[in-house]
Amino acid sequence: MKLASFIIGGKPGYGLVKDDGIVDLTRRFPECATLRDFLAVGLQSKAAALAGEASDFGLDAITFAPTIPNPDKIICVGLNYHAHVEETGRTVTPNPVLFARYAGSQIGHAEPLVKPLESDEFDYEGELAVIIGKEGRRISEDKALDYVAGYACYNDGSVRDWQKHTAQFMPGKTFAGTGAFGPWMVTSDEIADPTKLRLVTRLNGHVMQDTTTDLLITSIPRLIAYCSTILPLLPGDVIVSGTPGGVGARRTPPVWMKDGDVCEVEISGIGILRNPVVAER
Amino acid sequence: MKLASFIIGGKPGYGLVKDDGIVDLTRRFPECATLRDFLAVGLQSKAAALAGEASDFGLDAITFAPTIPNPDKIICVGLNYHAHVEETGRTVTPNPVLFARYAGSQIGHAEPLVKPLESDEFDYEGELAVIIGKEGRRISEDKALDYVAGYACYNDGSVRDWQKHTAQFMPGKTFAGTGAFGPWMVTSDEIADPTKLRLVTRLNGHVMQDTTTDLLITSIPRLIAYCSTILPLLPGDVIVSGTPGGVGARRTPPVWMKDGDVCEVEISGIGILRNPVVAER
Repeated sequence: MKLASFIIGGKPGYGLVKDDGIVDLTRRFPECATLRDFLAVGLQSKAAALAGEASDFGLDAITFAPTIPNPDKIICVGLNYHAHVEETGRTVTPNPVLFARYAGSQIGHAEPLVKPLESDEFDYEGELAVIIGKEGRRISEDKALDYVAGYACYNDGSVRDWQKHTAQFMPGKTFAGTGAFGPWMVTSDEIADPTKLRLVTRLNGHVMQDTTTDLLITSIPRLIAYCSTILPLLPGDVIVSGTPGGVGARRTPPVWMKDGDVCEVEISGIGILRNPVVAER
Repeated sequence: MKLASFIIGGKPGYGLVKDDGIVDLTRRFPECATLRDFLAVGLQSKAAALAGEASDFGLDAITFAPTIPNPDKIICVGLNYHAHVEETGRTVTPNPVLFARYAGSQIGHAEPLVKPLESDEFDYEGELAVIIGKEGRRISEDKALDYVAGYACYNDGSVRDWQKHTAQFMPGKTFAGTGAFGPWMVTSDEIADPTKLRLVTRLNGHVMQDTTTDLLITSIPRLIAYCSTILPLLPGDVIVSGTPGGVGARRTPPVWMKDGDVCEVEISGIGILRNPVVAER
């Protein structure tokens, strides 16, 4: 099942994505204002029962919002594929490299990735996003996947010079309009093994990153265990699991995203997140 | 004017703090569920007009919540006093060191600071918190203080071994129950100059940190300008401006907070944030 957040007629909503359109869940579950609320009350099985219903509107009628527009936490993982660790000249640490992105920096599928005025070093990072479905603290690795509601594509757009202002990555990782999330999440019942996915990032049609998710250094269960040791994970929380090798900053010469570019993140079994790049003026 | 968030009878609320108790604003402004909402609609002048009213309940009737329990962003500043930079053996960077704390890690005045099971290196960090009162992007330094709703005490409780798991500070800075915020905010009209405050941290009555806020490396206006370049600041956002020298980790031998300790952060013109320390079992 694919679940998406969107805007229609100026109003936010969420629904079940079918081949020919959207079954609107907003009006069927008025007690849940957002997809985050919907995940929190565990209504996914009811939504699946609606898959036979006719679509309420076509995909061309909506504007995609970030799959979870309002997560309590977006936890980003750095340096989680060996090929990326090597290209950065860094070393693997025993524990995962975590930093935050704020929710207000997110955009949906097809919305513009915003190259800020202040930088010409705007880079892509294709990643697998893990969306939490139920609350848990100190979740054990062997139970961790039970806490996953689903998976989505994420482009962790990075303003490299601001990322390097100090040793802390966060300023370069949370500019407005730089975190693309979508087009939808695929529920975990349809992703039998999240280590068997292929993740490809394309810039203007050229493959820039290409990996399989079995190469994650810190696995998804261990990320969930580690993060939930720190504080409770909540429904709708997002763990953005890290980018593979091939980022623009580490190419010779570097490749930066610029006005008019189109960046895609495709994950097998999930879909394609495609965003144009617009430079602020 | 002092504004606080609290729990009474199991319900969240917010109000105006007087010497003898609280004027409850929750029921006078039902359109604003939280202090964050209240700041967003700019009702502070109306609240001030209520200062002559009798208190609705005493301070002993409430449990203090974090002053803003639900900020959109908590932006923490590291290494922002020379004495602290020196004790850590680091160097001053031209731009501020920023990392995030998640809202779920916060506690109110008098609530326990939680030393987690996983660490014996639980440290205090007394800091001045800046609370944003209106939305702004790319705010200029000369206008920045117009965007401040008020100031509060913050104890940015730090789990030092987890902070050092990798170069990214965030994991050690957002454990559940480690961010004490309060007891209240003092509105900016009563703080003529936020560089003229004295900040003292005491552990079991002993002075551990003692500074004046004119010693901040990156000033409050520049922090606001820098952060708001990245993405819009919103009402209720919190900038925790950094800790002075004297942290426990850099003493010989190190001083760690342990079960039964009491930590206080006092800022002149604002008040005293006092929290017992409880070790998880």
